[in-house]
Amino acid sequence: MKLEGVFPPITTPFDDNGCIEYNHLAENIEKWNETDLSGYLVLGSNGESVFLNEDEKLKIVKTSRKSIPQSRKMLVGVGLESTKITIEFTKKVTDSGADVVVVITPHFFKNNMSHETLLKYFLMVADDSPIPVLLYNVPQFTGIDLEVKTVVALSSHENIIGVKDSSGNIEQLSDIIYLTRKENFSVLTGSGIILYPALCIGATGGIVAIACVLPERCLDILRLYKDGNHEEAKALQIRMVDPTIAVTSKYAIPGLKAAMDLFGYHGGSSRLPLLPITDAETKDIKNTFTNTGFL
Amino acid sequence: MKLEGVFPPITTPFDDNGCIEYNHLAENIEKWNETDLSGYLVLGSNGESVFLNEDEKLKIVKTSRKSIPQSRKMLVGVGLESTKITIEFTKKVTDSGADVVVVITPHFFKNNMSHETLLKYFLMVADDSPIPVLLYNVPQFTGIDLEVKTVVALSSHENIIGVKDSSGNIEQLSDIIYLTRKENFSVLTGSGIILYPALCIGATGGIVAIACVLPERCLDILRLYKDGNHEEAKALQIRMVDPTIAVTSKYAIPGLKAAMDLFGYHGGSSRLPLLPITDAETKDIKNTFTNTGFL
Amino acid sequence: MKLEGVFPPITTPFDDNGCIEYNHLAENIEKWNETDLSGYLVLGSNGESVFLNEDEKLKIVKTSRKSIPQSRKMLVGVGLESTKITIEFTKKVTDSGADVVVVITPHFFKNNMSHETLLKYFLMVADDSPIPVLLYNVPQFTGIDLEVKTVVALSSHENIIGVKDSSGNIEQLSDIIYLTRKENFSVLTGSGIILYPALCIGATGGIVAIACVLPERCLDILRLYKDGNHEEAKALQIRMVDPTIAVTSKYAIPGLKAAMDLFGYHGGSSRLPLLPITDAETKDIKNTFTNTGFL
Amino acid sequence: MKLEGVFPPITTPFDDNGCIEYNHLAENIEKWNETDLSGYLVLGSNGESVFLNEDEKLKIVKTSRKSIPQSRKMLVGVGLESTKITIEFTKKVTDSGADVVVVITPHFFKNNMSHETLLKYFLMVADDSPIPVLLYNVPQFTGIDLEVKTVVALSSHENIIGVKDSSGNIEQLSDIIYLTRKENFSVLTGSGIILYPALCIGATGGIVAIACVLPERCLDILRLYKDGNHEEAKALQIRMVDPTIAVTSKYAIPGLKAAMDLFGYHGGSSRLPLLPITDAETKDIKNTFTNTGFL
Repeated sequence: MKLEGVFPPITTPFDDNGCIEYNHLAENIEKWNETDLSGYLVLGSNGESVFLNEDEKLKIVKTSRKSIPQSRKMLVGVGLESTKITIEFTKKVTDSGADVVVVITPHFFKNNMSHETLLKYFLMVADDSPIPVLLYNVPQFTGIDLEVKTVVALSSHENIIGVKDSSGNIEQLSDIIYLTRKENFSVLTGSGIILYPALCIGATGGIVAIACVLPERCLDILRLYKDGNHEEAKALQIRMVDPTIAVTSKYAIPGLKAAMDLFGYHGGSSRLPLLPITDAETKDIKNTFTNTGFL
Repeated sequence: MKLEGVFPPITTPFDDNGCIEYNHLAENIEKWNETDLSGYLVLGSNGESVFLNEDEKLKIVKTSRKSIPQSRKMLVGVGLESTKITIEFTKKVTDSGADVVVVITPHFFKNNMSHETLLKYFLMVADDSPIPVLLYNVPQFTGIDLEVKTVVALSSHENIIGVKDSSGNIEQLSDIIYLTRKENFSVLTGSGIILYPALCIGATGGIVAIACVLPERCLDILRLYKDGNHEEAKALQIRMVDPTIAVTSKYAIPGLKAAMDLFGYHGGSSRLPLLPITDAETKDIKNTFTNTGFL
Repeated sequence: MKLEGVFPPITTPFDDNGCIEYNHLAENIEKWNETDLSGYLVLGSNGESVFLNEDEKLKIVKTSRKSIPQSRKMLVGVGLESTKITIEFTKKVTDSGADVVVVITPHFFKNNMSHETLLKYFLMVADDSPIPVLLYNVPQFTGIDLEVKTVVALSSHENIIGVKDSSGNIEQLSDIIYLTRKENFSVLTGSGIILYPALCIGATGGIVAIACVLPERCLDILRLYKDGNHEEAKALQIRMVDPTIAVTSKYAIPGLKAAMDLFGYHGGSSRLPLLPITDAETKDIKNTFTNTGFL
Repeated sequence: MKLEGVFPPITTPFDDNGCIEYNHLAENIEKWNETDLSGYLVLGSNGESVFLNEDEKLKIVKTSRKSIPQSRKMLVGVGLESTKITIEFTKKVTDSGADVVVVITPHFFKNNMSHETLLKYFLMVADDSPIPVLLYNVPQFTGIDLEVKTVVALSSHENIIGVKDSSGNIEQLSDIIYLTRKENFSVLTGSGIILYPALCIGATGGIVAIACVLPERCLDILRLYKDGNHEEAKALQIRMVDPTIAVTSKYAIPGLKAAMDLFGYHGGSSRLPLLPITDAETKDIKNTFTNTGFL
């Protein structure tokens, strides 16, 4: 299985009391379905999965699957600290309809997460997972950077189909692409700011937060790239820098949700301890999308 | 409530298949009960709590309480990423017999964990917790360092009784002690290497891994300090440096468990992805304790 | 003045006793002059400028100028910790023939290097420099990352013509390009691995170590990019990943010099404390260039 | 030679134009000479040595020596990036009257500063230095932390007499003290906040910025410690936390100089790019010393 194209890491809509609004989740997916998105990542970092209990997680997966047609991939985030629990949960999300599991590096015991430890972890998960595994590297959250040599060593496992790299480090991405070029291995960026240059260098696509807000524009970058229309791709990508920063590093998930609200999706609240964004921040987000011509 | 003295952050004994050996847990506590330890931290980092599911956690708390007399404090680690889930779990461990909850900083969304966010998080948990709260700062695992100003702001809440600081940063510890001196606030170090200097500077005690292995020696440091026998305290502390490093930064929890095995406790295995230590490493640990005269 | 194209950050050839071989320096430049390189960076990080005294530095600048025709730019690295000394040295290299000064962020007192401090520093240097200034950001050496907002604030100064960003962070590069797009501001990458994707996103060129070894291949990337031949540009860039890593992060300057030796340049020794690379490392470097078809 | 007691890392007084006021330097030393300070560190980080040229440095050393009696040690900071230049400069400061050279880790090429590289560097410097060498570890400025194993390996060289550790990491300090206990090796802390606990754990003294402002109080801590008056030592140390923070991490060298002005020393200006502190900051510094009863 090859993962290509654009996949939004979808958010979990909450009401002001922190309760999940499953109907809003479904409506968001149905609106995204009007586009050519290749699929969805459910229970990723942007899905606030660390704030959910297992029952909530599985209900979100099942609800999403109902709205996600079989023609589109449903990727589900499953990484947990323990090998055993990760495998158990992988089986549960498979039963709930997942096509691919996206497995984050365990990270609490940072100093123990050596090449050998992570290698064994991912191999055991991949051996026991009924569905394909996508590695997930996100040092800004985990505090550890999955080494290139670990990714390369794992790339030959038949049930490991690729990596989502959210480090934003295109040097590392280039290195992985070069060293896994003989494998049928998908390399996706997790950074919306580098979607176009990542494609240029050989990435197969992106799982990027901004695709929750501007799916069509992300798909435009993909199309322009494929058509060889690099000047327009560059111009669009550059124009998307500021909006992408606003919904990621600057205002994080509450900012992403505020932007979704502006574009007719159900953004809604985040769960505490994430604080709601202020009115001034919401205004700044709106200005960012207005000034760049997306709104 | 004032927390004073030495508290081991107790390990969770597993068999080779990763199953919890509750009888070993109880036997360990009974052996520790023969000493003057002030109490125990259950479900701390060393308890591998990130590898346990909720049922396991609560059974460990209940099992521990049966062996821990009311005269000794049972501290229980409860921090989770979500405010709501942390509060819910706090109530459950209270019902299972905890005396104090030890609340780690949420940390997945590192960039969002501002002073304001953490302040609100801890205040909400402290407001709703039926039992006293001990703040827990452990940057080597969480990737964030609880700021002094946040600790100081929280120190005036009547249900927040102190902080466990595992940063090993005695500058920071000194600053906290100075700025909270008017409150009835307990400052405990989480680093066994600095137990004696931390006492010198005003810490009320330690929650230190080495106390699982050498509880009497940790208590000796405390007694020597109180008796004004600083030369002997220093000599003993310095002698404990290498053994402490062996069971923490050098070999981590598998090393701690191997050392416990050497001293008649049930160390046992760790859960994957933590790899078992090798025979050579076990031998090195034994040598470390032998060469320093503890074995 | 616009800086476009490829500029090698040239090395300083030493003999085994650490003495500068000025004739080798001149011969290297003359060999590079056979290509279409836009110019040279003298006394950059790769020039081991931190190991040189002022007399040596100025003699290197003068020697280089004799071999560098006026049609090619001579960029000279001048950043020092003190504002005053930086300005004084800037005037001296101007008198010695420099066209542009490349000014690294001061960095010893890291915690003091705020936006305000760096802003004032670069403005004072730019005000007093007789020749244009290129900002130089290299966090892997300085431990500080020049903030985007500082670069943007400086971009409107008429004597500040651009930035060399060696962070390898293409997100940051994109952000700078977007925010300085109305100025006549050159953005050059300092990372050879991202030369092609940096061009895609709007960089005007690169000052990259691998250009000391493979100038023609770097120029090929530039030409292929300009011709719209993106597939070949990508393939060539990806093929250059491993050689580039070998002469930068993997084996550093001694590795770069060993590679130069392989390609008919005078690499020579580095100054201590940099240790010479071993025979096995030299062999690995040779294999890297052979396996990728460059040798 | 054993280094014991308190040594201020003395500042370099500048006028508002950045010119050195040598008479102020001499007057400061003469005022400090009224105390029992064991000696002085000239050209340390606090001496703004990175902002000085060689002529200025040597004139400062000679001026200082005139005021420093032979009964007190004159330590001089000499570390530079190149082995050769460090050795040359070491000989010059020896000729200018230095008793000990304090050698900082080279650090520009951080990734190259391996154990082997630093070992060879310090051994070569120690071999060629006419006077004893004190190792200097200051990760907050250099970005590298001298490893315990490197210090231990160097401790057996007869011309390496100790280490100044400014990391503030008392775990590391304890480890060094334990592992070098059989050598005649002086371990001095560079952090004024941990002077008392460092003594408790076996440090022989401190080279601490606050000793420029409150030399008598630092000496009080030493005396109280030696007299076994631990309660008073602790109380005094804790009281010094806030003033020490004010003149180091909070306001850096400009803050240290402002505090010196308050206590009758010639603080004066710092060189650019360090910005002058504001009136509000000066007032805050004054309040800090007043509120803690030192002023």
